[in-house]
Amino acid sequence: MIGIKSIASYVPAGRIDNLAQAASFDRDEAFVMAKIGTTTLSVKDETEETSDLCAAAVRNLLAENPALKLDAIEALVVVTQNGDAEGLPHTSAIAQHKIGLSTHTACFDVALGCSGFVYGLYALKGFMEAAGLKNGILVTADPYSKIVNRTDRPTTLLFGDAATATWIGTDPVWKLGPARFGTDGSGAEHLMIKDGLFHMDGREVLDFAGANVVPQVREVLELAGMTLDEVDAVLLHQGSATIIDLLTQKLGDNGHKAIKDLCAIGNTVSSTIPLLLERHAAASNWENLVVSGFGVGLSWGSALLLRNAA
Amino acid sequence: MIGIKSIASYVPAGRIDNLAQAASFDRDEAFVMAKIGTTTLSVKDETEETSDLCAAAVRNLLAENPALKLDAIEALVVVTQNGDAEGLPHTSAIAQHKIGLSTHTACFDVALGCSGFVYGLYALKGFMEAAGLKNGILVTADPYSKIVNRTDRPTTLLFGDAATATWIGTDPVWKLGPARFGTDGSGAEHLMIKDGLFHMDGREVLDFAGANVVPQVREVLELAGMTLDEVDAVLLHQGSATIIDLLTQKLGDNGHKAIKDLCAIGNTVSSTIPLLLERHAAASNWENLVVSGFGVGLSWGSALLLRNAA
Repeated sequence: MIGIKSIASYVPAGRIDNLAQAASFDRDEAFVMAKIGTTTLSVKDETEETSDLCAAAVRNLLAENPALKLDAIEALVVVTQNGDAEGLPHTSAIAQHKIGLSTHTACFDVALGCSGFVYGLYALKGFMEAAGLKNGILVTADPYSKIVNRTDRPTTLLFGDAATATWIGTDPVWKLGPARFGTDGSGAEHLMIKDGLFHMDGREVLDFAGANVVPQVREVLELAGMTLDEVDAVLLHQGSATIIDLLTQKLGDNGHKAIKDLCAIGNTVSSTIPLLLERHAAASNWENLVVSGFGVGLSWGSALLLRNAA
Repeated sequence: MIGIKSIASYVPAGRIDNLAQAASFDRDEAFVMAKIGTTTLSVKDETEETSDLCAAAVRNLLAENPALKLDAIEALVVVTQNGDAEGLPHTSAIAQHKIGLSTHTACFDVALGCSGFVYGLYALKGFMEAAGLKNGILVTADPYSKIVNRTDRPTTLLFGDAATATWIGTDPVWKLGPARFGTDGSGAEHLMIKDGLFHMDGREVLDFAGANVVPQVREVLELAGMTLDEVDAVLLHQGSATIIDLLTQKLGDNGHKAIKDLCAIGNTVSSTIPLLLERHAAASNWENLVVSGFGVGLSWGSALLLRNAA
């Protein structure tokens, strides 16, 4: 049975002072912490390509897991909508070469935003099972510094750059339980690139998340014959402090199970959930948890992860 | 057990006269047929977006399969590296809305080129099994007319626009057998976009295909305990007449099992193999066949398809 064995990450060294950015828009620290949730944002060096972020995260995963040998990796999936250069070839192929993976590695990119980690888990697990593979890596790397408009207050205060690498294999720490997925392309325009720059209608995104995320989490738990009362933790995509506060409220008495942690780097798109897993789940005594990602598309996905009895 | 139930396609009405194009480069019909394999290329209307091609192929699939109801479709995967607009959001989300699929549909794009159909089959089948879904559609739609440089003889004579839609579900016509995948990012530069235009080093691509495709086909057959002698048909990505002739030669005594059919529309990237399946496999008495796609990345994938006993 295939599931999550280990998660590592790479956060570029560069930092943007979010208080200084906010001040230029006449906003103070109270505003930044209430609406965004972090006073610093991570930013990659201009010379770093998306595939470099991928390679760095995979190298960290390998360093933390001596049992995972480079030549045992049979699949590499990169979740990104801001890949290298001009989108052809795929970033996972470029990363394959930079990491030094075998040419027998199956590589493909999954083009998704903030829901991408949840979708990617099931896409890679399923692909590996369908193709008879034993060890794969799911990478998230969507550096929005490439597309953020620094004169647009709501988005320039929000996004940070990061990459994560999740080892998918047998004898896992976390089994993948029931999952549900959703798409509503009628809201595509609320999160999109136009003339090379990212545009977001924050009000629409908040309404969408408020209406869809917690109901989908409940659907997943129904599939598992469980309720929120039996869940140990709820790891939501860290879109912003405002969104997390709203969803925490909608979780009612179980709101305390939701984590708010922008990791002092901001909304890192598909990397926020694996970053939470790395920081909060690895050393926990949780027996189960729910992950839920939502955003660009519009697209959302939620899943139950279950600790694998050793 | 999940596999291929049905395949439909959409070919835009526009045609490029490949003989007229060739004449402008001082090349004649003999050259065109020997090197490319078609005197006409399909081309989409400038007003047609990639998601429109996707939607048209899915509508044709639905029209040919009254048993497949719109609201029974639970997953839509689009294989493309030339999606709508600027790559965010994903084309599958936009197509979800244009087709009128339920918002409970799991949608994602797989960014791959000419190997994309083979990878996509296993990614979607696996995703559906991992997520417990019954009906999904794999779409290929990679309109190179968006990126072809009309002054570059080798590529402007080669590529056509098309989309295909493959219904993946239970009680299939074709079961997915063993598969093998490969990636070599050290050759990424041989097929890439630079400054918005596609560049190809045809010699390098030919060498790569010649060295890797038939050996991978043999590996797949070994996994199945079979040899080429027992295979009914070999459906190779229709890169060009030159590539098909080379690979046919490498198949030796079994070369006659390879089909050369540019479908009078050209190299349609990830759509060539499903187009061959639609045109040649559906009405055949083949009990098995091999599919093999290769190109951008560099990336290659081969699989054995087995007719499902009714």
